[in-house]
Amino acid sequence: MKISALQKARYSYNPKLPAILREDILSIRPVEGGKTTSVSDQKQIEKLFPNTYGLPQVSFAKGGKRECGRKMNVGVILSGGQAPGGHNVICGLYDALKKANPQSTLYGFLGGPSGILEDKYIVMTDELIDAYRNTGGFDIIGSGRTKLETTEQFEICTKVCRSHGINAVVIIGGDDSNTNAAVLAEYFRAKGEKICVVGCPKTIDGDLKNECIEASFGFDTAVKTYSELIGNIERDANSARKYWHFIRLMGRSASHIALECALQTQPNICLIGEEVEAKNQSIDEITDYIATIIAKRAEAGNNFGVILVPEGLIEFVPSLKVLIREINDLLARTEQQFNALESIAQKISFVEGKLSAESKKVFDSLPEEIKGQLLADRDPHGNVQVSKIETEKLLIQTVTKRLKEMKAAGTYKGKFSAQNHFFGYEGRCAFPSNFDADYCYSLGYNAALLADFDLSGYLSSVRGLSLPADQWQAGGIPITMMMNLEQRHGEMKPVIRKALVELDGKPFRYFASQRDSWAVGTEYTFPGAIQYFGPSEVCDRTTMTLELEHSK
Amino acid sequence: MKISALQKARYSYNPKLPAILREDILSIRPVEGGKTTSVSDQKQIEKLFPNTYGLPQVSFAKGGKRECGRKMNVGVILSGGQAPGGHNVICGLYDALKKANPQSTLYGFLGGPSGILEDKYIVMTDELIDAYRNTGGFDIIGSGRTKLETTEQFEICTKVCRSHGINAVVIIGGDDSNTNAAVLAEYFRAKGEKICVVGCPKTIDGDLKNECIEASFGFDTAVKTYSELIGNIERDANSARKYWHFIRLMGRSASHIALECALQTQPNICLIGEEVEAKNQSIDEITDYIATIIAKRAEAGNNFGVILVPEGLIEFVPSLKVLIREINDLLARTEQQFNALESIAQKISFVEGKLSAESKKVFDSLPEEIKGQLLADRDPHGNVQVSKIETEKLLIQTVTKRLKEMKAAGTYKGKFSAQNHFFGYEGRCAFPSNFDADYCYSLGYNAALLADFDLSGYLSSVRGLSLPADQWQAGGIPITMMMNLEQRHGEMKPVIRKALVELDGKPFRYFASQRDSWAVGTEYTFPGAIQYFGPSEVCDRTTMTLELEHSK
Repeated sequence: MKISALQKARYSYNPKLPAILREDILSIRPVEGGKTTSVSDQKQIEKLFPNTYGLPQVSFAKGGKRECGRKMNVGVILSGGQAPGGHNVICGLYDALKKANPQSTLYGFLGGPSGILEDKYIVMTDELIDAYRNTGGFDIIGSGRTKLETTEQFEICTKVCRSHGINAVVIIGGDDSNTNAAVLAEYFRAKGEKICVVGCPKTIDGDLKNECIEASFGFDTAVKTYSELIGNIERDANSARKYWHFIRLMGRSASHIALECALQTQPNICLIGEEVEAKNQSIDEITDYIATIIAKRAEAGNNFGVILVPEGLIEFVPSLKVLIREINDLLARTEQQFNALESIAQKISFVEGKLSAESKKVFDSLPEEIKGQLLADRDPHGNVQVSKIETEKLLIQTVTKRLKEMKAAGTYKGKFSAQNHFFGYEGRCAFPSNFDADYCYSLGYNAALLADFDLSGYLSSVRGLSLPADQWQAGGIPITMMMNLEQRHGEMKPVIRKALVELDGKPFRYFASQRDSWAVGTEYTFPGAIQYFGPSEVCDRTTMTLELEHSK
Repeated sequence: MKISALQKARYSYNPKLPAILREDILSIRPVEGGKTTSVSDQKQIEKLFPNTYGLPQVSFAKGGKRECGRKMNVGVILSGGQAPGGHNVICGLYDALKKANPQSTLYGFLGGPSGILEDKYIVMTDELIDAYRNTGGFDIIGSGRTKLETTEQFEICTKVCRSHGINAVVIIGGDDSNTNAAVLAEYFRAKGEKICVVGCPKTIDGDLKNECIEASFGFDTAVKTYSELIGNIERDANSARKYWHFIRLMGRSASHIALECALQTQPNICLIGEEVEAKNQSIDEITDYIATIIAKRAEAGNNFGVILVPEGLIEFVPSLKVLIREINDLLARTEQQFNALESIAQKISFVEGKLSAESKKVFDSLPEEIKGQLLADRDPHGNVQVSKIETEKLLIQTVTKRLKEMKAAGTYKGKFSAQNHFFGYEGRCAFPSNFDADYCYSLGYNAALLADFDLSGYLSSVRGLSLPADQWQAGGIPITMMMNLEQRHGEMKPVIRKALVELDGKPFRYFASQRDSWAVGTEYTFPGAIQYFGPSEVCDRTTMTLELEHSK
């Protein structure tokens, strides 16, 4: 394998740890805070987690020195979509385990949670770990989307862990995976199994955060990668002065990525799903909003611009949400019949005939291409694949039509030519920024300590992230503390509450206070490529979201 | 305007100059080499350029010191598509002019060549120049695609130049713009105008190069930006192990970008237009080639991969080239009739009915979406917009179909799921790499000297680019030397010969020697984001194309 010059140089980067984690690992002790309660539905959640509910928050502090850490066998699992820094979590975990006790062993389960079910693993070695330090991707052991949630699966986990003498499992995942980690922790405790389960907060989407978890890892690097590209496109737009660039950004259930990219690049327009939902906006209204700004810019001779569109937008548009739900229900009921149809045209007319009057109207208003995308590939559960729907093209079409009408009415005199882009996969496996390299390494190192002290059902927590790394605080948060009950597949389930963009939060409010000026002016900012070396203000800064959230 | 941290840091970057250009500018002298001849069609080209044909190559050397450089008024024009480093050409030009004589003035014509025709300009100041040092984009004065080629235009140029006392025009552009620069230089000489015309070799496509011009500027930064993204996607593919990523890359008339990106990232497949044409391959054959590799990888359990597709591919496929030409001719003849048709379906059936039997067959074999793209938007000349055709989606469709047939025949047992990407605009306005920052600044600085010595009809030339910058050689190449006659719009015209990927050149031969191994193995290389600071092997290296071309 040919290793790039950057990868070689990054091998020698030494991730920064919080001050407490730089202490001799055998002198670090957990300090218990007060007991915790879940964010809501306390009684029901306590009932569901009799053994792991109400645990105290834990922080680490310096104490008397132990002779040696426990000899541990730890299993690690990467769950769900890739996020930059996953390898560093594993490196930090490995280093801390070996420091505390060189006899400890780290098992990497292969291909995600299915690795533990199928007992497929590798044993981590210095050589392997060194080949992945500060690199992007999850390829060291691979990832997967199998969910660990049934008792049958938990029984297999028990058997596999027992067979290797595993006394802790570290699950690196998003809100769903960490919810399942909590359920598994509760299961092990209930069964008297001496297996500790620790979670790590991963997702580029940025929707796993709360009072105690300031950011999920990977968000920083992913948004910086997208912002690099958006800034480049802005500069191109402002040089060529002839295109409107519609850029769709990954991030389905929340618009954090789009918001952060807007804060970094100051585009003319950025749509925020949560706002669209709160205002109950239709595609027509969104189209109006965009077309009005295009017309204003055209008056000043600026027939160009940049628009950010979150991937999940269409699920936030109430009428489209209803349509998608109807299609999902319909296809679930008529799967065989539907699948027997050969052409997209047949599928479209099949569906059209079976929708409610309201949804038929919405469906009919969509361009053919988008109708096709709604019906073409579906996910393993048979649902519409929202990520495959080219919302940016949909908007280009609706805006083109609206501008034509405006031209006919004399309210628009410009020229409109559009380019479409989608950024998602480009950012999930980038080399982690210094921030993510440090944060992830700290999360992993910290997870080893949580495991060593048998703090099961905890999420590895590193806080104070808007400060320099040596001022970060390390500890653990009981996962049940972040839970509430939500309806899933018709049942109420305990889940970690997803963090949406808060319309009264500082990041959105700052954006909202600036956007009218960005819309008409051309106030683009060009962040450029992520820098790993060089001046600290260039290579060590984290996101504006975090800065604003923690500003006074 | 909010300036990013990187942009601020880049302001203080000091571009590296060739040793000779670091000398006191008043001690630098041109040294004439031997007389030159055009690459072919010498007699005809000499006849067309009686005043500027056969000029000697020029290099710069240290000589006796002048009191002062000429007081010059120079006009600069950015022509055509953006390329990283354009601002640095202007900065180098400005700095050298002011050094040689602080009384000199640099006029920036706005919005490309039309700026000189419309006499729209700004006068460059220290403050303005400092705001654009080492930045991407062409936004300092904007660019445009107007061609300076008619006598009428030349007369206006003369008038405008005279009105400002301009004694040199520097045109920063690709092969066409520099061809026109040569014609303008000849015109001025023929008319006895004391206006010098100097060209600078720009294009991310990399197709403006020859014996004397080792690389066009912007190529280095653009391919590094695309390679960053391709590497990230490779890492994602290898982590998720479930997608084939089809990535189309800008670069229409040559496949240099795709080839260089392949050398940097080692994908499973990279198509090269020049090879497709040489082998007279059809879409069917290309589909076969891809499907065979997908099937081989599936046998080893690798249902994922990365494929690079040059944007210009379809124009290299002989049967499609004929089809596109027929459509262009047809639409030119039937413009009104065609434009009156409302729906894409009507347009498709209109065209279908009028194609030759052979082209109709090819057209019919295309997916509806691609047919629509062939007929939807057309460029200002009414031609098919090749850059809008999603060739990567076309290939996903043909490959999907082929794999289905193979599955039925039992020769393929894998799973196939594809993602499509297009990278172009993302790279044209990136912050120039150190290489492009240095190279461009040197080209501009050097152009000021060519202008000062009234070397009209020359292209600014900096050579030895695979060596460290202080060993680069600076000088000028008569543009006529790079010319041959080619058919354009039915007439034979003198033009700079476009550099295609040479199938017997070292870069392609190296690629061809490796590709079978890359296809089946997973030998991805992850270049990561362009670095501007840090170890020299990370931030000062140029392209593999250049390294291979100049290797022994």
